[in-house]
Amino acid sequence: MPDALVCSKLNEACGVCGGFAAGQPLAYLTGLALYALQHRGQESAGIVAGDGRGGRLWHRRGLGLVSEVFPRTNDLKEIPCRIAVGHVRYPYQQEEGCLGSSQPVVLRYRYGELAIGHNGRLINGPGLRAELEAEGAIFQTRTDSELLAHLVARQGAPDLEEALAAVVPRLKGGFSFIVTDGRRVIGLRDGYGLRPLSLATLKGGGYYLASETCAFDSIGAKFLRDVKPGEMILLDSTGIRSRQLVQRDRSAFCVFEYIYFARPDSNLLGKNVHLVRRELGRRLAREQPVEADLVSGVPDSSISAASGYAEESGLPNEMALVKNRYIGRVFITPTREMREQGADIKLNAVEKIVRDKRVVLIDDSIVRGTTSLKLVQLMLRAGAKEVHLRISAPPVIASCYYGIDMPADEELILFNRTADQVARYTGADSVAFLSMAGVAAAVGLPEDRLCWSCFNGDYPAGRPDQGGADRHTNSSDR
Amino acid sequence: MPDALVCSKLNEACGVCGGFAAGQPLAYLTGLALYALQHRGQESAGIVAGDGRGGRLWHRRGLGLVSEVFPRTNDLKEIPCRIAVGHVRYPYQQEEGCLGSSQPVVLRYRYGELAIGHNGRLINGPGLRAELEAEGAIFQTRTDSELLAHLVARQGAPDLEEALAAVVPRLKGGFSFIVTDGRRVIGLRDGYGLRPLSLATLKGGGYYLASETCAFDSIGAKFLRDVKPGEMILLDSTGIRSRQLVQRDRSAFCVFEYIYFARPDSNLLGKNVHLVRRELGRRLAREQPVEADLVSGVPDSSISAASGYAEESGLPNEMALVKNRYIGRVFITPTREMREQGADIKLNAVEKIVRDKRVVLIDDSIVRGTTSLKLVQLMLRAGAKEVHLRISAPPVIASCYYGIDMPADEELILFNRTADQVARYTGADSVAFLSMAGVAAAVGLPEDRLCWSCFNGDYPAGRPDQGGADRHTNSSDR
Amino acid sequence: MPDALVCSKLNEACGVCGGFAAGQPLAYLTGLALYALQHRGQESAGIVAGDGRGGRLWHRRGLGLVSEVFPRTNDLKEIPCRIAVGHVRYPYQQEEGCLGSSQPVVLRYRYGELAIGHNGRLINGPGLRAELEAEGAIFQTRTDSELLAHLVARQGAPDLEEALAAVVPRLKGGFSFIVTDGRRVIGLRDGYGLRPLSLATLKGGGYYLASETCAFDSIGAKFLRDVKPGEMILLDSTGIRSRQLVQRDRSAFCVFEYIYFARPDSNLLGKNVHLVRRELGRRLAREQPVEADLVSGVPDSSISAASGYAEESGLPNEMALVKNRYIGRVFITPTREMREQGADIKLNAVEKIVRDKRVVLIDDSIVRGTTSLKLVQLMLRAGAKEVHLRISAPPVIASCYYGIDMPADEELILFNRTADQVARYTGADSVAFLSMAGVAAAVGLPEDRLCWSCFNGDYPAGRPDQGGADRHTNSSDR
Amino acid sequence: MPDALVCSKLNEACGVCGGFAAGQPLAYLTGLALYALQHRGQESAGIVAGDGRGGRLWHRRGLGLVSEVFPRTNDLKEIPCRIAVGHVRYPYQQEEGCLGSSQPVVLRYRYGELAIGHNGRLINGPGLRAELEAEGAIFQTRTDSELLAHLVARQGAPDLEEALAAVVPRLKGGFSFIVTDGRRVIGLRDGYGLRPLSLATLKGGGYYLASETCAFDSIGAKFLRDVKPGEMILLDSTGIRSRQLVQRDRSAFCVFEYIYFARPDSNLLGKNVHLVRRELGRRLAREQPVEADLVSGVPDSSISAASGYAEESGLPNEMALVKNRYIGRVFITPTREMREQGADIKLNAVEKIVRDKRVVLIDDSIVRGTTSLKLVQLMLRAGAKEVHLRISAPPVIASCYYGIDMPADEELILFNRTADQVARYTGADSVAFLSMAGVAAAVGLPEDRLCWSCFNGDYPAGRPDQGGADRHTNSSDR
Repeated sequence: MPDALVCSKLNEACGVCGGFAAGQPLAYLTGLALYALQHRGQESAGIVAGDGRGGRLWHRRGLGLVSEVFPRTNDLKEIPCRIAVGHVRYPYQQEEGCLGSSQPVVLRYRYGELAIGHNGRLINGPGLRAELEAEGAIFQTRTDSELLAHLVARQGAPDLEEALAAVVPRLKGGFSFIVTDGRRVIGLRDGYGLRPLSLATLKGGGYYLASETCAFDSIGAKFLRDVKPGEMILLDSTGIRSRQLVQRDRSAFCVFEYIYFARPDSNLLGKNVHLVRRELGRRLAREQPVEADLVSGVPDSSISAASGYAEESGLPNEMALVKNRYIGRVFITPTREMREQGADIKLNAVEKIVRDKRVVLIDDSIVRGTTSLKLVQLMLRAGAKEVHLRISAPPVIASCYYGIDMPADEELILFNRTADQVARYTGADSVAFLSMAGVAAAVGLPEDRLCWSCFNGDYPAGRPDQGGADRHTNSSDR
Repeated sequence: MPDALVCSKLNEACGVCGGFAAGQPLAYLTGLALYALQHRGQESAGIVAGDGRGGRLWHRRGLGLVSEVFPRTNDLKEIPCRIAVGHVRYPYQQEEGCLGSSQPVVLRYRYGELAIGHNGRLINGPGLRAELEAEGAIFQTRTDSELLAHLVARQGAPDLEEALAAVVPRLKGGFSFIVTDGRRVIGLRDGYGLRPLSLATLKGGGYYLASETCAFDSIGAKFLRDVKPGEMILLDSTGIRSRQLVQRDRSAFCVFEYIYFARPDSNLLGKNVHLVRRELGRRLAREQPVEADLVSGVPDSSISAASGYAEESGLPNEMALVKNRYIGRVFITPTREMREQGADIKLNAVEKIVRDKRVVLIDDSIVRGTTSLKLVQLMLRAGAKEVHLRISAPPVIASCYYGIDMPADEELILFNRTADQVARYTGADSVAFLSMAGVAAAVGLPEDRLCWSCFNGDYPAGRPDQGGADRHTNSSDR
Repeated sequence: MPDALVCSKLNEACGVCGGFAAGQPLAYLTGLALYALQHRGQESAGIVAGDGRGGRLWHRRGLGLVSEVFPRTNDLKEIPCRIAVGHVRYPYQQEEGCLGSSQPVVLRYRYGELAIGHNGRLINGPGLRAELEAEGAIFQTRTDSELLAHLVARQGAPDLEEALAAVVPRLKGGFSFIVTDGRRVIGLRDGYGLRPLSLATLKGGGYYLASETCAFDSIGAKFLRDVKPGEMILLDSTGIRSRQLVQRDRSAFCVFEYIYFARPDSNLLGKNVHLVRRELGRRLAREQPVEADLVSGVPDSSISAASGYAEESGLPNEMALVKNRYIGRVFITPTREMREQGADIKLNAVEKIVRDKRVVLIDDSIVRGTTSLKLVQLMLRAGAKEVHLRISAPPVIASCYYGIDMPADEELILFNRTADQVARYTGADSVAFLSMAGVAAAVGLPEDRLCWSCFNGDYPAGRPDQGGADRHTNSSDR
Repeated sequence: MPDALVCSKLNEACGVCGGFAAGQPLAYLTGLALYALQHRGQESAGIVAGDGRGGRLWHRRGLGLVSEVFPRTNDLKEIPCRIAVGHVRYPYQQEEGCLGSSQPVVLRYRYGELAIGHNGRLINGPGLRAELEAEGAIFQTRTDSELLAHLVARQGAPDLEEALAAVVPRLKGGFSFIVTDGRRVIGLRDGYGLRPLSLATLKGGGYYLASETCAFDSIGAKFLRDVKPGEMILLDSTGIRSRQLVQRDRSAFCVFEYIYFARPDSNLLGKNVHLVRRELGRRLAREQPVEADLVSGVPDSSISAASGYAEESGLPNEMALVKNRYIGRVFITPTREMREQGADIKLNAVEKIVRDKRVVLIDDSIVRGTTSLKLVQLMLRAGAKEVHLRISAPPVIASCYYGIDMPADEELILFNRTADQVARYTGADSVAFLSMAGVAAAVGLPEDRLCWSCFNGDYPAGRPDQGGADRHTNSSDR
């Protein structure tokens, strides 16, 4: 579960949710759903609401956490609506701090208003954008949501459903969109099902879509099923309809959602994330055992895997690292003395636990290696005799093009380095990874239903256009 | 000078400024210029800055006063730039509180980035928008700035100057635009010169444009000349160029800028606003004399006219109304007792001054009549024996289509009522206005160089398209 | 009328108000009264409310304007109460930014709760404090309100009225206190009546006290009379009582309230402040005429005097200086170029008005001389041919010990300099003052009913104790 | 570790820290230490700093988290100081939201300035306060810090050390004080050592005191030793001195610090809190075994105990409850539908994990029973077959008088109910507790060195005065 407030790690590009229902405070429920999806994006939040009859859309968007953009969340109950769409966002670096890119994007086109929120990334975005620009289009954000709006508007089809049916097959990459024109709410998932999107029924009637099932739990909605790869779900006053827009020969759900992104209480393709992570830990213990005194997970994302490793290995599972939950986004720079003492205001290595101990430190991934370096150094300064880094996933050797904000290949420490080299770099006594097979077994799905591109460079939905101006480099320091 | 914080009156649609200069903190100077233009728009503020070489534009926009959007104004000095464009905005009612319409609009099109801020209103906006929508354009704001961007983008001309030269002649209405593509800053004024835009040199070199000259004073810039109607001014690293894009048979500068909007220390077409207003007061005294004991102006906009009236009439100029400068945008509703006592938290009528006196109350305009009603009642409750309302302008009988946010004709109290009827409605002993000839003489310009449309319904630049969805009604209560 | 937001000038030490009334939203009315008194203190605001039966006091205090401390002013209507006391404060420099000194001070003593707010300054404060400290008292603020509470508490009298009756005669200096114990509201004024305090009836029944009558107007209260020097007013459920605690041989109301501090719509000792100021201007014109082209007042405090000077002299009254009302408390430092151009973001001298003109600039006082220097320089840079500074008061030559935050004698430019020396320092062509006799005549009261200490060094209530640690020096730059 | 943001539980009354050191940004380090102590109080934060030579104290206090009161934490580096004292506070209910009670209390007395922060509660506070009030003292807060200041001030001893030496023996109850007079920093601990206080050396020289050792880790300070019960530690420019002020026949450290309050990475009396909690879990498994399918701890405070229980019992340790870390202090009320579905926005029970399972739910305490009820219901709605509540502590049957904000005896669900009755009330299949002997063994200290008053009603430092107005009841709903 990503926590941009503490560690600079990989960042998911967003969470979306939305639904259609009468007689319920849908904007309010959408606010609660956004709280549950907050881990998927902490830079901005937004909600759009409509009466379900095509009346003018209400919207509010802002920079910050849901609690900052909607500080009086209860007031959302007062917004009369039958339609709501919500969005939380973690920005690609180039867009950082730019309110303009907050979603849902709201706009007016020939046939009325549109609001769009999405999670994912189009690999042919730059090409489509260039094509549109050549025809005179202007872009006010870098979001794929704005891009989709342009495509819909140029389609010239008065009916949104038909416009989307014509446009979606042109989109390449990984994406889940939620779109509304004020009369219906439409969910869309790419043909490989790279990014998650699930469907639920609301207790009081109506349907609800969300990136993760934990959002359903938070509003008392009942999980119905996952939206299928390539499927379009239409929610309106007449109920629900489905239409298959794209058909691929395989599906390829992002395995990283299991490993790191999703909340442990979410279920993805029917598998509970915490249970998968525990099993990743168990299999890691089997594949990469080590003689040691204790196991400890890096909080919070590796707690489940660590408990699995501990159980399987028979080693005690200790809390060798404690995270300060109150730092927030305050900018703090350590003094020289603090640095010399290895003091870290956000993470504390507990000397009483690790002093003279051989520690197995469980983490979920190594990206740039800087976070691993810091973690190992914290352990060593606290007196650990040995530090064995065990990663509950394979080495990340290739960048992601489908919606995870990852550095360029050459910035990935494992792009052209071995585990031993990483061990030397970080100061760890050993570094070892779980195999793809091990991950697949832990998930309980065949390898060919998952996307492994960041682990093997094999991109099921293809690589970006040549003019790939959209492959972002960023400064996240892991 | 409009003051949205105290009286709900007519509202100007914006203030713009911007320039090109090397070696100076141009973003900071633009911040200061915005403080000076704040009376032209208090809903949002924004600044765009660029390196003058086409590098990516920096921008920040937000809802609120300049001091709220840029609370650490001094920090703007740290932004290295040779280009800056600033904007303050008072929104048309439909857009209220919607950050999306903050300006300058910043966007990307085929040939790079554009930022646009404007003041005014296009009467063929709806038509152009419909035309563009039919071609597939999408709109994220209701601003004419976005509209101009679309037109430029569709022009397909790689050179911004040529694109604007082709597009501007298609624009109808009153407008002053400031546009930048990161390499130059371009100022544009409609062919009738309806809205103001002036040019200055900066002490350290470079040029600066602004809606009012008071902005130049605040940054130590030296007024050079007004931008001519229909003129395009280009500022870049090579200096300044001018190009006449549109030529009309007459000019028609908004006379209301003199009467109400502009700051008294600004000069418009070479005439100082305070001096014009004093002369309005003098001529009003001559045209509409009245036997009375004292003269008092409604603060702050009618102070100058009141002093002119007093001088000419020989009556003492008293401070019969005192404004509380600290109320700000706090929402306060009076109690019944307060209402019964005529207590007003924002304006206080001074009993010691008006008790048993015949008061000439000078105001600059009557729009809906509700403000006049309140003012007369305040005077009467404070004990005035007679209240003679004298307006330093003709009756407003027609809505404005060129950038002033005015109610529809039928909501204007003088649309189909006489001065006597208004006197009866407000409780005044008499109501009288200055003639158009008197105003023209006070300004010192021939009538046919000014726009009098709100006074005579004669629209020099034409009326809006039929599909005039953009003629806004609003709730301002004057 | 002081405006700490724009000019650094003399600062009043506070405004107080409060009353007893049933069936009215008294906390809300007190909030409105504080808005009206805001010019007397902008550093902090506070309200205390009680049920009038001795129930626990509600209170809220904070740094900032009334609109910042009570942003949802209307919510004050929800506080059920029959008692309320309010306070706004401009701090003595040593206390600046220290929330601890916000008033009303609320505390618990032997016989229950007390809340106290005040305006003024005790000259024997340090001595009383030392005495109390020697007996073991601790002080958490530097306010005289806390000091009064200590004295009351040590009195050992269960009845607050008796305790105050015993304590007040020990207090020396200028003060108006409003005190509540949750059962009644008590107003107190020093024996010389140095600081203002007036009494009104509320429309819905009950009584209200306030530093200035403009507070009554803002809540629809009807002025009854001024509290008498040395008088104690008791408001409770049985009505109103009065008790004379101290009797001096003369009264000595602060003449500076007329000259500068009070709002123009307030009446002090039955005299309207604006009318007094106009008369100050008239008499100044007679005493200190000058051949010139125009008169202009420094906004906002000298506008009334300027109109009087203009009328009497027959010169036109122009708006040569325009103040930006939107700067607020933003900290802005000019660039070198701005300084060279004489650009000032807060005050703009209007070249069109003053160019080649002989200007009579009316101000209300010269303290340190730095503000006068700036004003004259603004005029000269704007092209004035001559600048004649005319002050609607005598020279300030001695510090105030009774509640006005003034620099030490030796920092007063006129402490040991002549008007001519000041003219040379500021660059003015001449500097001249109104005589004390002229001021007294304008006020319409005998000289011996007013305090002239800052003009003649004659302190009716005496000078501070030797240990005068409380005579503050400060950095105000006038 | 308390988390007022999520569960309403028992609340510690504060965290304190402070030290003396030259050449280091001590105010900044104190800010960081407060971040580490934030779990001990989230209502207000404050820092006092001084030059160590008796110069005037700088201070800032405010309501909110450390990150809210000191949003630009890095700026604290600019405060030149050799002394700093910090405080975070969770208020007793009566004081809630009252800035006045923020600490450190700063005041002036006969011999200069004092600043005092504390953690704990005096049982003879009401008596001492009444005694002082009878002598004329006034109280502006309800804090024991202000009370101590009064006692010091009345002592009449010019030397703070001597004054404290005389006063401290009069104090009864549990407390740790940190006091400074601007020349030295003094730490004080009650004679039973009820509340924690530890001492460390700073890397760059100087000493530092803090409620918990995790504060030392966060600033790179090195733990030296715990302050002894009854000891006074004096830190000044000459180094460190110790003086034993009070000597009791036994010590009685609050065992609840181990069970619930302290951060897991802190060491108390040399015992790491996480390791103690794990051992509590192990012993609980041995004392209260149950046939089940899985173990789960209530986040975050029972995670350590749950891992111990799981290890000892051989049951898998699952994450059956997931906490939303982003809710903060937003006030959210569920809809009826949400309630019917058992939806909780802050805690989510994971159906995939608990469905048809027998769950051992580990929590650290049962106070009012309402939280336990909610937890059990969450489990049952998520499909748990059986829920066995296991508490890693004995039943809480008596209120605390030494600094923990606990309800009155009769509001404690176990005050006169059996575990079986609680099981029936909450719907749990069984409820069982760890014995005092088990706790003592887990801590590794003899029972008679700990305070067990809330478990056995035996108060080592006595019960409050009869006039015990200070035994607060509150609304925490556990």
